[in-house]
Amino acid sequence: MKPPIILASNSPRRKNLLRQIDMEFEVKPSTVNEDFDIDLPPLEFTRHYARLKAAELADRYPDHLIIGADTIVVLAGNILGKPFDAEDSFRMLSSLSGQTHTVITGVSLQWQTAGIEDTFHESTRVTFKSLTEQDIKYYIENYRPFDKAGSYGIQDWFATCVAGIEGCFYNVMGFPLATFYDHYRRLVR
Amino acid sequence: MKPPIILASNSPRRKNLLRQIDMEFEVKPSTVNEDFDIDLPPLEFTRHYARLKAAELADRYPDHLIIGADTIVVLAGNILGKPFDAEDSFRMLSSLSGQTHTVITGVSLQWQTAGIEDTFHESTRVTFKSLTEQDIKYYIENYRPFDKAGSYGIQDWFATCVAGIEGCFYNVMGFPLATFYDHYRRLVR
Repeated sequence: MKPPIILASNSPRRKNLLRQIDMEFEVKPSTVNEDFDIDLPPLEFTRHYARLKAAELADRYPDHLIIGADTIVVLAGNILGKPFDAEDSFRMLSSLSGQTHTVITGVSLQWQTAGIEDTFHESTRVTFKSLTEQDIKYYIENYRPFDKAGSYGIQDWFATCVAGIEGCFYNVMGFPLATFYDHYRRLVR
Repeated sequence: MKPPIILASNSPRRKNLLRQIDMEFEVKPSTVNEDFDIDLPPLEFTRHYARLKAAELADRYPDHLIIGADTIVVLAGNILGKPFDAEDSFRMLSSLSGQTHTVITGVSLQWQTAGIEDTFHESTRVTFKSLTEQDIKYYIENYRPFDKAGSYGIQDWFATCVAGIEGCFYNVMGFPLATFYDHYRRLVR
């Protein structure tokens, strides 16, 4: 039986990605905010917040399948979330320039009346070219990437700055389509 | 000096990708068709056709920068172009199932009055999940991927079938944005 689906996220990327694979769903953003002072290693961090976000909606809609997700950028063991402002954005992009970092998305699928909670994550390695100060400034001024973990969108102009990736591209956009689909089909078959 | 730009391709993916990185250009498709019986190794094949496609327009618009491109899928040394029909599509996707193949795009930038011809290529490794017959049939019936090398679009529902990639994602869509942008900036600075 296929339950109705709620995406517990207001990310326009996540909505578009789920539409791309022909999913039907409603959007009801969770109100959970990440606390970057919490003492959790990166993988646990994303899984913890994906679980919390989904749980908030699962309690209100127990007969729906809830999708919660949380994406972070990890550079040398440090978690980068969304930048506070243009200055923070400049700092983040400068630190990522010429380096390889890891994007991790935690996903939690919760369907209370069926007794289902399935939480998993996906990691993708992303290597940036060496960026000039001019490139970074152009990007921040024209794209204002303040709602994005790590302060970049691989699906916009910033594509010109990415030397290559290893793993799932859509995970870098905020939702690991292929892995999600495997889990989803196992749950609802 | 920045010359006006012509994209010598009618691929909707290539148009969208160039728009994504804020390029301004006109579209004038070349009439060159690939001959898969030509005796060239894969890399040379894509570079040859990218060059031919750009040259056709460069002769007519010598004061424009022409962008030619050619994308192929290579599995175990064999070149896969676009499928002829649904049966051919089914054969191609079945052969790619559970395997890693290489997507190669040759790109040629030609600006005759400036004496410029710059031809290069980009390779990306793509690994498919093991696909069921049902998945392949669903995809062919609903997406009719007959205008795509290898018979899939990583930017549509088929994203659910791709385990991961190594390299440039946009190259798999048909145009290597980051490498193109490096070459472009070197030429027109």
